[in-house]
Amino acid sequence: VKTIRIDNTMVDKGGHKHFMGKEIAEQPRVIGEAIRAYMPDGDTIALPDGGFDFTAVDRLTLVACGTAYYACLTAKYWFEQLARLPVEVDVASEFRYREPPIPARTAALFVSQSGETADTLAALRYCEGKASSILAVVNVAESSIARESDLVLPIHAGVEVGVASTKAFTCQLTVLLILALEAARQRGEISPERLADVLSQLRNLPAVIGNALDTDAFAAHVSNELAEAQDVLFLGRGLMFPIAMEGALKMKEISYIHAEAYASGELKHGPIALIDSHVPVVVMAPRDALYDKTVSNMQEVMARGGKVLLISDSAGIEQAGEVWRSITLPRIDPLLTPILYALPAQLLAYHTAIAKGTDVDQPRNLAKSVTVE
Amino acid sequence: VKTIRIDNTMVDKGGHKHFMGKEIAEQPRVIGEAIRAYMPDGDTIALPDGGFDFTAVDRLTLVACGTAYYACLTAKYWFEQLARLPVEVDVASEFRYREPPIPARTAALFVSQSGETADTLAALRYCEGKASSILAVVNVAESSIARESDLVLPIHAGVEVGVASTKAFTCQLTVLLILALEAARQRGEISPERLADVLSQLRNLPAVIGNALDTDAFAAHVSNELAEAQDVLFLGRGLMFPIAMEGALKMKEISYIHAEAYASGELKHGPIALIDSHVPVVVMAPRDALYDKTVSNMQEVMARGGKVLLISDSAGIEQAGEVWRSITLPRIDPLLTPILYALPAQLLAYHTAIAKGTDVDQPRNLAKSVTVE
Repeated sequence: VKTIRIDNTMVDKGGHKHFMGKEIAEQPRVIGEAIRAYMPDGDTIALPDGGFDFTAVDRLTLVACGTAYYACLTAKYWFEQLARLPVEVDVASEFRYREPPIPARTAALFVSQSGETADTLAALRYCEGKASSILAVVNVAESSIARESDLVLPIHAGVEVGVASTKAFTCQLTVLLILALEAARQRGEISPERLADVLSQLRNLPAVIGNALDTDAFAAHVSNELAEAQDVLFLGRGLMFPIAMEGALKMKEISYIHAEAYASGELKHGPIALIDSHVPVVVMAPRDALYDKTVSNMQEVMARGGKVLLISDSAGIEQAGEVWRSITLPRIDPLLTPILYALPAQLLAYHTAIAKGTDVDQPRNLAKSVTVE
Repeated sequence: VKTIRIDNTMVDKGGHKHFMGKEIAEQPRVIGEAIRAYMPDGDTIALPDGGFDFTAVDRLTLVACGTAYYACLTAKYWFEQLARLPVEVDVASEFRYREPPIPARTAALFVSQSGETADTLAALRYCEGKASSILAVVNVAESSIARESDLVLPIHAGVEVGVASTKAFTCQLTVLLILALEAARQRGEISPERLADVLSQLRNLPAVIGNALDTDAFAAHVSNELAEAQDVLFLGRGLMFPIAMEGALKMKEISYIHAEAYASGELKHGPIALIDSHVPVVVMAPRDALYDKTVSNMQEVMARGGKVLLISDSAGIEQAGEVWRSITLPRIDPLLTPILYALPAQLLAYHTAIAKGTDVDQPRNLAKSVTVE
């Protein structure tokens, strides 16, 4: 393990009260850098180091811990829907000990901000000699996980100091989406027109993310109310389900509120019993193909006295009718929504923690990188 | 949908205060019935209707909702470790809308107590014409899911009235374990000696489950203390992770306490921030190969002031040293632990709900079978 000394000349808070606030605000820039690194000419994808042949594999295994695991869960939807490539996702501490069978023509991909996460590294070593190739999506390119991989895909987020990951998560998502688009292209599963359209919207994403940061003041306002809650639920379907999980994790990590995420469709299978007027429910639902389903679950929550905070675009907010609170995000291609909707998830956790007076950048009991088991 | 009338001549509480209590107590008998149905001669497995050729598939997809989903997560460990057959598991409401690719030689297996779960049925229909075969593990053999499957595997739990599933869950596990053992046998991944050993222990399981019910009084005692909590965490690794999830779901469903489960190894990646003396942590850790790892996570919880309720066997309890509370279960082959450890999970939820005075058999907002989306 290489120790990297961080001092004030390398990183400061740049006028922000916390590193986390600064890192949230940096996202338009660093996501832009990630996009430029993988699309250097502006409209075609170029992977580093000669790239990867996605026609040579039949299956992907994605392994990570914590926030990076939610990036993997999001990527499963992208790889399966865009590239029709079956994906298995697992948390590293489970994967390494259950000794999973790795069929031929399986690529294993590991995601870790630091590249030093102990369980993820052990999972990678389990795959050595079994998987047909090993890919790493990391922020620290000189890390152990990067060194032991066949192909390193850096996320270009820059140094992240806040213990609760923000810009690393959205940069992980950006790189994983580009990778899924490249897999779809190679496997002939996406038309050149659709690919060009998505890439064009991707180039515009930093500007959209910049606009989404304008919700900061309202997120701060709502967070004063969330800070009163002991428990919060996050709901989402499809691509919004992992983002709901990330929102709940962020809230737990820095505000110590017991937040938990559920796939909206699972609500009726148990967690709806928790709903009363003391448990705010954050519903993430852009107006996409799953919107009506999620809104129907949201109405079940409201019928039982639950307070709903709806995060959607203006069409979605309008169609939903009256809810407790809402946050309006720009309208965007459904494929890109996870990256955009990660922002209000971060902002709510950040401002709720501030309202509660907890230590935002150094939450109790947590370390930035988990380099022991 | 066929409506089945239930009246007092068919089912009564048999001296118990609640159907749930009765159904928990029935488990030695109904698990015994499931075992006899699948091992009619006592020492070889015989699947119904000519059985299934596990050498004809390269991959299993398991889909379910709620408690049945946790049975599927458990089965993933069994199928992968015993039969070296890669398994994908998903909740039905997510599976049906993400349009997952179904590679050739994939068997799809659906688990549902009622056989009428709307999302599970829709997921099954998505697989028609794509999966090479469709299997159903159901309690109601005349259900829609059973009718639309190539092979129906009944769980023989008998009518379950309590909304929170108990005996159906352990019977689902029993059938899934037998299925994984049969897959391992057909694929030559288990020695005849090891198979005979596991089957012999399986025949003895109803007696062991009966002994485990002796923990009822102590579970009731601890539950009076759990009932004071607003939040509870459940931790487990490997086969204990899905059982921790089931324990948390049960607790949510009937006591309305916000219980949540985590894979022990994920603790340091966020949820440990929640730990203080107000959040009891239920740790499920038989003294198996993962015991030391889980106990190390448990000690992190205690070092941060957390109150640990350890569920283990006597060797595990002894080795752990001092904890807040412990429940001792009989020692058993690690493969069978999920079925056994489901019992204290049920008993804790049951007695906590009684201590809180909630409606155990008809928890608020919940229905027995979710036959709409």
